[in-house]
Amino acid sequence: MLGNSFGRMFKVTACGESYGDALVAIIDGCPAGLEISDAEVQIELDTRRPGTSPLDSPRQETDQVHIFAGVRDGVTTGAPLGMIIYNVDRHDIHVQQYRDVKDLIRPGHAEYAHMVKYGKFADWCGAGRGSGRETCMRVAAGAVAKKILAAHGMEALGHVSECMGIKAREMGFEDIKAHYRKNLINCSDPEAAEKMIERVLEIKEEGDTAGGIVEVVVRGVPPGLGEPVFDKLNATIAHGLMSIGAIKGVEFGTGFNTARMKGSEANDIPYLDENGRVRFRTNHAGGIEGGVSNGEDIVVRLAVKPTSTISIDQQTVNMAEMKEQKLAAITRRDPTITARVVAVAEAMIRITLVDHLMMWRGYDAVQNIEHPWS
Amino acid sequence: MLGNSFGRMFKVTACGESYGDALVAIIDGCPAGLEISDAEVQIELDTRRPGTSPLDSPRQETDQVHIFAGVRDGVTTGAPLGMIIYNVDRHDIHVQQYRDVKDLIRPGHAEYAHMVKYGKFADWCGAGRGSGRETCMRVAAGAVAKKILAAHGMEALGHVSECMGIKAREMGFEDIKAHYRKNLINCSDPEAAEKMIERVLEIKEEGDTAGGIVEVVVRGVPPGLGEPVFDKLNATIAHGLMSIGAIKGVEFGTGFNTARMKGSEANDIPYLDENGRVRFRTNHAGGIEGGVSNGEDIVVRLAVKPTSTISIDQQTVNMAEMKEQKLAAITRRDPTITARVVAVAEAMIRITLVDHLMMWRGYDAVQNIEHPWS
Amino acid sequence: MLGNSFGRMFKVTACGESYGDALVAIIDGCPAGLEISDAEVQIELDTRRPGTSPLDSPRQETDQVHIFAGVRDGVTTGAPLGMIIYNVDRHDIHVQQYRDVKDLIRPGHAEYAHMVKYGKFADWCGAGRGSGRETCMRVAAGAVAKKILAAHGMEALGHVSECMGIKAREMGFEDIKAHYRKNLINCSDPEAAEKMIERVLEIKEEGDTAGGIVEVVVRGVPPGLGEPVFDKLNATIAHGLMSIGAIKGVEFGTGFNTARMKGSEANDIPYLDENGRVRFRTNHAGGIEGGVSNGEDIVVRLAVKPTSTISIDQQTVNMAEMKEQKLAAITRRDPTITARVVAVAEAMIRITLVDHLMMWRGYDAVQNIEHPWS
Amino acid sequence: MLGNSFGRMFKVTACGESYGDALVAIIDGCPAGLEISDAEVQIELDTRRPGTSPLDSPRQETDQVHIFAGVRDGVTTGAPLGMIIYNVDRHDIHVQQYRDVKDLIRPGHAEYAHMVKYGKFADWCGAGRGSGRETCMRVAAGAVAKKILAAHGMEALGHVSECMGIKAREMGFEDIKAHYRKNLINCSDPEAAEKMIERVLEIKEEGDTAGGIVEVVVRGVPPGLGEPVFDKLNATIAHGLMSIGAIKGVEFGTGFNTARMKGSEANDIPYLDENGRVRFRTNHAGGIEGGVSNGEDIVVRLAVKPTSTISIDQQTVNMAEMKEQKLAAITRRDPTITARVVAVAEAMIRITLVDHLMMWRGYDAVQNIEHPWS
Repeated sequence: MLGNSFGRMFKVTACGESYGDALVAIIDGCPAGLEISDAEVQIELDTRRPGTSPLDSPRQETDQVHIFAGVRDGVTTGAPLGMIIYNVDRHDIHVQQYRDVKDLIRPGHAEYAHMVKYGKFADWCGAGRGSGRETCMRVAAGAVAKKILAAHGMEALGHVSECMGIKAREMGFEDIKAHYRKNLINCSDPEAAEKMIERVLEIKEEGDTAGGIVEVVVRGVPPGLGEPVFDKLNATIAHGLMSIGAIKGVEFGTGFNTARMKGSEANDIPYLDENGRVRFRTNHAGGIEGGVSNGEDIVVRLAVKPTSTISIDQQTVNMAEMKEQKLAAITRRDPTITARVVAVAEAMIRITLVDHLMMWRGYDAVQNIEHPWS
Repeated sequence: MLGNSFGRMFKVTACGESYGDALVAIIDGCPAGLEISDAEVQIELDTRRPGTSPLDSPRQETDQVHIFAGVRDGVTTGAPLGMIIYNVDRHDIHVQQYRDVKDLIRPGHAEYAHMVKYGKFADWCGAGRGSGRETCMRVAAGAVAKKILAAHGMEALGHVSECMGIKAREMGFEDIKAHYRKNLINCSDPEAAEKMIERVLEIKEEGDTAGGIVEVVVRGVPPGLGEPVFDKLNATIAHGLMSIGAIKGVEFGTGFNTARMKGSEANDIPYLDENGRVRFRTNHAGGIEGGVSNGEDIVVRLAVKPTSTISIDQQTVNMAEMKEQKLAAITRRDPTITARVVAVAEAMIRITLVDHLMMWRGYDAVQNIEHPWS
Repeated sequence: MLGNSFGRMFKVTACGESYGDALVAIIDGCPAGLEISDAEVQIELDTRRPGTSPLDSPRQETDQVHIFAGVRDGVTTGAPLGMIIYNVDRHDIHVQQYRDVKDLIRPGHAEYAHMVKYGKFADWCGAGRGSGRETCMRVAAGAVAKKILAAHGMEALGHVSECMGIKAREMGFEDIKAHYRKNLINCSDPEAAEKMIERVLEIKEEGDTAGGIVEVVVRGVPPGLGEPVFDKLNATIAHGLMSIGAIKGVEFGTGFNTARMKGSEANDIPYLDENGRVRFRTNHAGGIEGGVSNGEDIVVRLAVKPTSTISIDQQTVNMAEMKEQKLAAITRRDPTITARVVAVAEAMIRITLVDHLMMWRGYDAVQNIEHPWS
Repeated sequence: MLGNSFGRMFKVTACGESYGDALVAIIDGCPAGLEISDAEVQIELDTRRPGTSPLDSPRQETDQVHIFAGVRDGVTTGAPLGMIIYNVDRHDIHVQQYRDVKDLIRPGHAEYAHMVKYGKFADWCGAGRGSGRETCMRVAAGAVAKKILAAHGMEALGHVSECMGIKAREMGFEDIKAHYRKNLINCSDPEAAEKMIERVLEIKEEGDTAGGIVEVVVRGVPPGLGEPVFDKLNATIAHGLMSIGAIKGVEFGTGFNTARMKGSEANDIPYLDENGRVRFRTNHAGGIEGGVSNGEDIVVRLAVKPTSTISIDQQTVNMAEMKEQKLAAITRRDPTITARVVAVAEAMIRITLVDHLMMWRGYDAVQNIEHPWS
């Protein structure tokens, strides 16, 4: 397996499986002089943690994080940050459940592909490294990125904007922030949230699971962030978001609907605001033009598929015996992961933004230019 | 600027601006023993070339490619492939047109961001490196990737599946191939194509431009391609596709609509086909589960925004004088780039697939495993 | 700080400071199906461990390693390998000693540079991340690489070939192996070893420290390993070796003396051996020509400077008060680290070889070539 | 083949073979606002060019460089810089000479390894990509780096400090600069130079070739450059230097002789100079401690082996017929490449320094620290 690092200058490398001993993230490129504590990272982790809501998996993980490297006296030293979370809820009963079905393809999961890739050595327990459990370390790393962004005036907040056909009203950054994480479904429109929760609980009753759409808005991004060709800001954000398990689509600004517009409708028209700064009258672009931020809020949406593990019998294939058979209903599962994805999506966006900021600053410092407009 | 390389093992690095002397791509990691000629790469480039259809820009570029490194006697030697295209249609009259508006933000383009990033040194001519012209070299590199994929039984084909509200009927790989690139809009549904073309020409008459949706389907991808965490196959494909200018969204399989499904509906159920191979009864996942291919066709769609350059006056900001003013209508433009994006999207997907194939083969060769199912 | 990863496909990322809680290494690209246990890695670590010889630092670290990720039932799963070592000997008395001199530049160390780089946040305790303690994780990762190499018929062994003017006799791979790690100085020539030990103990008595030269020989490297331009096998090995603290020079084969030879003397002449395989009559090249292995033993030597920490008073600068002052003699130190560098040098070479093997295999698998000679 | 890129932020990617059409380098990460012309790059290239001295190959290459991308009106725009050099002296007679011996291993060259790696497709003409001809583009890229360094007060100059036993006297930066490139052998000690030239011409008469040692000194490097672990400044410089064909050893400061010193001798003692800046009384470290620059001159030496191509018959192996045979004397060759390596070594060091500067500036810009001492 490759690809356990993300980022170029603010580079997160992680390891750890769903039912392994521990998960670790190393942040290479972590700047010195940043005050950060276990508790601060914990706050973010707690928003992703399972076992706390009827909408989530009942798995009891404390997700207690410890920063074991890169910090002295509560401040980063410039050395890479090391963070560890021990897995606690991996009791024999659960391991046995996985062992019982280890030769079966669990529909919607990556088992079949892993079996082909790693043969009989593929980790059969709880999807191993392919489990959503790895997103813990994304969130932990994102908590560090969040602090760096805050020092540069940037803030990224997400919520569930749609769930099983129920849409939140259109909301800007301030709206999302006003009711941020106030309910089980993490939707900042309280009325929609209530309906979403009700709907998910119904679906849970059926033994089934629900998908949804997460929207993240970033305020305070300076114009100029992002590299104009292969590493466009939207391209790298999309990379990060699409690397979260269960994500089937990513769109920016008006997104897929932009494809149905004319140029005269889709173009965001610039003007000078009362402070003489360039602003745009609309934000169809979602804050990114030509792969580079334009100073408007970055707006991105992710399609989250319904949890693959369901409490309903399914047909499948037994890879050891190469025959079709039934996979029995599984009760330990998330009725929806959409609410939990919010924290992971925010984290990936934050990490990406810090990475771009450092890349830009790196060459900008040796450029011989004035920045009259920034 | 950074980010002019794409890929890890099959790594494409490119340079060149819209109105510079030439565009070059270097493919590091190009395998030896591959027969490839200028003519073969040219075929792909001709599908992207402007100036040949009333739907495209009238810019007259021959896009004549020459492989100047990495090949001896028509076969690759293992040395990096070097390809060059000289810009020919960059006459004074056009340069002057750009010079006249060099301080104006052209709505929908990245000018403002580039001015902030590179100050007065930002290339004002035809969007410089930020122009869609750079996609030539993506297509050239993609032509090489196409040959490698063919040797491994993979084929990626795209078409325009929607344009300004007109949708092609649902089509699988064989359908798309049957009418592949048979009309100006590159839509494989002839009836829809006719309506799309008519609609774009109407919009062109208005001085306006049209967006659309491109769909690419890949046949023959073996199960196991893609890395399970940050470099999921869909994540890296999304990176590549979203790095094409004008793309505002990317989705796989049932995409955003998966978010409106229940788990029992979205899960693709595996079975054994008549050859005893694992297949899936549906393909909501678009061929990728947990970031790794499952052997079904990869299905991906891209939202293409309407061309930003329109033949209608627009309000804008003059950055030299920091005042609002009018940007006059521009006649040299693409009424829609959707048809031309097909070639670029195919190229980025092909490059990404070869890159993953080489990464996988790299560690697989040192693994101590059997591959009973592949 | 950046640069805490090494390798492209077999990629080791590490963190942890001399007096932090723990050191961790993550190996991304670790192949599946490899049997590996804590005990096996421990064997290698024990050869690097301080506190066991009068030639080493008396610091009492058990260097107990635990593989916490990437392994199930004693076999790698393909997931990244995670390894952790807790620091145990970091008692208040030692921390206080470092605190007492935290504003002083310790001659020969990187303090001054770190202060400039990280300001007052630079880790003052035991050189922080800049300490040789980080080499634990290189050795741990190297133990994994060693097993992979063994499966491909490669073996890298080192010894101390020179120490304070005392030279071991010229030795080939078999000679080094015959007396491998049989004495405190890790020199495979027993007679020279005895004199070296005696000399180092004398120097230790003076409160001083000793340098030396380490030689590593690799047997079984197939011809063809290494990339012909920037990532030549010798270039990447030199990168890895020169990244070990205290290394001031690296040379291959006849090394600096090759510069004093004529072409007719330096060229290694090929011939066919009794099995019809290409061999070379001499090995001035040290097994690498044009950056690629030629099938002969790789021979590399490293110059190790004497330990910077000495038990003799030294003049220095107090950076807080910006005045010159005395740094008192320090007793807890390594009389020489040359013997301990052997394990680290072997590890870096092993990691580099596996990395190259995986890169080569990656593109070779998609090449359309026969390998008649390999 | 992989590894045709060097650098992380100031990243040079190159292609082109000895007898291909052209050589190209792309510099990704080239900052905007840098005045650079073809002529300026040409000056550096002319110092490396063959065919101008009795010590060099008679191959007549003009090495005329053209910057075809990344520059507008003589100033960089921030877009990647593209540079091209066409090969002109590749007449049939020379190609035929290579064709005649295409199945023979030329002793000292990488042919055998390339044959194993790329099979029958390995480029047989003039060593293909493995030829020293590729170093043109290193020098071209180095010319750009040189200008950036100059703007930051850094200057790297090299000379031949030893040739076939004849040593230049010990020289500092000012000494080297005083007689910089004043003679055919590029040795800044005029008396030694005369003897060196005489000796090389004698060896040339014998049909043989000569090795030598190149020394490069860098003035003006600020303390703090370099990353403390795997990407130490010396490690990455060594990587760059050892990636030049024919280099068999690299050492910093007192180098291999440091291994023969005691700690009390080798430690460079810091003091405060008359401006209150930290300086060191000696420079055994060669300006780098713990992998990070300490403000003293960087001093590095490279062992250059004698040119492999000699005008004397040699025994070798015919790989097509798998039999031993004679390789006839070759007249077109460099009696020594040591003088020409100076330009290449300077280039690699310059590129590496700019790369480190940009990396450091990247994270430093987001650090929350003061730099009281820099």
